[in-house]
Amino acid sequence: MNAEIISIGDEILIGQVVNSNAAWLGEQCSAAGLRISRVTAVGDDVRDILDAFDSAWRENEVVVCTGGLGPTHDDRTREAVLAFFSTTLIPNSDVLEDIERFLADRGRSMSDRNRDQAMVPASAQVIRNFHGTAPGYHFSEAGKHLFVMPGVPYEMKAMTEHYIVPVLTALHPRRRAVRTVLTTGIPESTRADTLAGIDKLLPSTSVAFLPSPLGVRIRLTGLAGSEDEARTAVEQLESFVREHAGEWIYGKDIETLEEHLGIILTAAGETLSVAESCTGGLITDRITNIPGSSRWFDRGVVAYSNQSKTDLLGVDPRDIERFGAVSREVCIAMADGIRHAGGSVYGLSTTGIAGPDGGTAEKPVGLVWIGLSTPDHSFAHAFRYGDDRMRTKQRAAQSALDMLRRHLHSLPLVSSL
Amino acid sequence: MNAEIISIGDEILIGQVVNSNAAWLGEQCSAAGLRISRVTAVGDDVRDILDAFDSAWRENEVVVCTGGLGPTHDDRTREAVLAFFSTTLIPNSDVLEDIERFLADRGRSMSDRNRDQAMVPASAQVIRNFHGTAPGYHFSEAGKHLFVMPGVPYEMKAMTEHYIVPVLTALHPRRRAVRTVLTTGIPESTRADTLAGIDKLLPSTSVAFLPSPLGVRIRLTGLAGSEDEARTAVEQLESFVREHAGEWIYGKDIETLEEHLGIILTAAGETLSVAESCTGGLITDRITNIPGSSRWFDRGVVAYSNQSKTDLLGVDPRDIERFGAVSREVCIAMADGIRHAGGSVYGLSTTGIAGPDGGTAEKPVGLVWIGLSTPDHSFAHAFRYGDDRMRTKQRAAQSALDMLRRHLHSLPLVSSL
Repeated sequence: MNAEIISIGDEILIGQVVNSNAAWLGEQCSAAGLRISRVTAVGDDVRDILDAFDSAWRENEVVVCTGGLGPTHDDRTREAVLAFFSTTLIPNSDVLEDIERFLADRGRSMSDRNRDQAMVPASAQVIRNFHGTAPGYHFSEAGKHLFVMPGVPYEMKAMTEHYIVPVLTALHPRRRAVRTVLTTGIPESTRADTLAGIDKLLPSTSVAFLPSPLGVRIRLTGLAGSEDEARTAVEQLESFVREHAGEWIYGKDIETLEEHLGIILTAAGETLSVAESCTGGLITDRITNIPGSSRWFDRGVVAYSNQSKTDLLGVDPRDIERFGAVSREVCIAMADGIRHAGGSVYGLSTTGIAGPDGGTAEKPVGLVWIGLSTPDHSFAHAFRYGDDRMRTKQRAAQSALDMLRRHLHSLPLVSSL
Repeated sequence: MNAEIISIGDEILIGQVVNSNAAWLGEQCSAAGLRISRVTAVGDDVRDILDAFDSAWRENEVVVCTGGLGPTHDDRTREAVLAFFSTTLIPNSDVLEDIERFLADRGRSMSDRNRDQAMVPASAQVIRNFHGTAPGYHFSEAGKHLFVMPGVPYEMKAMTEHYIVPVLTALHPRRRAVRTVLTTGIPESTRADTLAGIDKLLPSTSVAFLPSPLGVRIRLTGLAGSEDEARTAVEQLESFVREHAGEWIYGKDIETLEEHLGIILTAAGETLSVAESCTGGLITDRITNIPGSSRWFDRGVVAYSNQSKTDLLGVDPRDIERFGAVSREVCIAMADGIRHAGGSVYGLSTTGIAGPDGGTAEKPVGLVWIGLSTPDHSFAHAFRYGDDRMRTKQRAAQSALDMLRRHLHSLPLVSSL
């Protein structure tokens, strides 16, 4: 069963907005067992919208469309669906009530434009919107379905979840199961040699390797007549990956490395403090994105100046003088220093040269020392990350968190690359 | 002159990757004066790719396509262009040398798959790739152009900049000038009443308001026969915006608030230190994304526990006891404390309840105190940000940096909302 996703809005075409709505809808439709044939974005132009409807409706059973339903003259999607289905507008009292309630809750009163939004295409089912004023529409004809929603992400997501997903599930297509295994530091050879052929292990499965600065996500997909069968196939693939690449796996699906650490540390009643130089707060920013991280995270310092490394972490200024701020000795002193200052079980530290300036032949841009201090020992390792400042910060933060993960799982502290 | 952007790859359709390549290319093509008619994403399937080429080539003068040029069997774009232009593969010695050099620099040797990548379509110009092994292709026929590039973002971007942009500029279309004015904290009434009608001020201009958690970006576009005319129109619009909303403007185009602060502080020889509780390092992460920030940023602390607020910032534990960690008194003590500890001119602080837990009737989730300490005075203000943890962190970090901006420009420290 084929589906197309259509996104409407000039802001998408000219790149002022990245089309994350389409990605989210693609995931939802895939999970419901649909095959996405195409994602199309067109501007706020009735003719372009009609062209997009035309080819999507011809070639797919399901079309999901977002955007262009707002109250301003730029929003042309309602006009386009009226023309496409040769229908007219009728007032809808449920929608009118929804809009009145929505505005009243916010102390706002009804404008003519809002009132006009309660006029809906006569031949459509309404998809109610409890988070904004524009309702959605559902057209169905001869076994085909067009869903139209506003482009505001949280409105669109809520409408998809409470209306579209149940409709799609009722259409009973083939079931798809997807599992993404998250790895970091995995060597190219393991990926290319050991794991390359796994999609040939089982019929109707596929495997994709998705690299990013944080590591490689391995996406496993199974397609089958029932949900159980699809899930079983994916679980078999997952076992294979875990058997051959277990060392580098930190989570699955949308889990993050910091969530994973939080679960382990919370269970163990252990705490962490962090001393950052070149990562500049990125590690603690990631940690504090996790609800409840105050249970296992005590404090962080961003010791950018040499003086602050001494003041906040007790690094001996003679060590900075002798070995340099970017050195094994200073890195270990930072990890030890923050662990003691925070009275925490673990201390992590980073010190490096993020660039673009400050590199030398001996200590080039992209060199980052990462340190871990535990009650039993202290350790530091030098990583090399190339010359992109932001990417170096991202990769160093990931490597630091991964060093702690490796310690907690009694693995070698650095990937055996 | 119309252009279509085509993105190829299953990972885009099923939402495992957000299509930021298309957004970036949309900006480049717009800036070169093209009208983007459509953005299309299709999977790694030769028939789907050919269908997309077919309609794009019929309806546009320029088609820019990325993805599906890697060395694996999933990558089907080269096969599709061969069929589309009825051409064959020939070896290209420049490309072979590029690949050899690229691999040698990384200590890797040539594989058969790499060697195959030096086989290019006979009727295409080659777009050389200095950051990876897959070359791009440029087909031109009867005044139409198809550009094909790999989907790896930094490879694609470099190839666009060194090859495609010059070609597009040489095609001499109508010139477009775009200026984005960046605001934060702008009141809804200013935006809706004062600024709403500015696209009616001048012919061939348009204005878009693009909201995000960091503020509203106001995009001003002018279209004219010459670059000068287009730029003049945009400058007139910009003057109008600055006249009516100057207080809320912190930058233009892709500038960030932290870059803006860095420029002012560097020029004044002044420094900043930051004490974060609920923002958890996000402020210093943003600051340290700026090359050269070590000149004006001394240190940060993430004081998550009460003990760390006392240890690192000298906050009186009796104040925490009496007023609570989320209070004006503690917020000001944190800003003063980090300013003194860092020996810096300014101190910024945040303390709040990011949620989802920890809220009370008196201090609900989303309440954040933001403080600024200067040599002359200390100030704190309470903001309310709703119940999304990540969004609260983002908005609080932005408000904190904006409070310093407002001080540096002698504006009221909080937007007169």
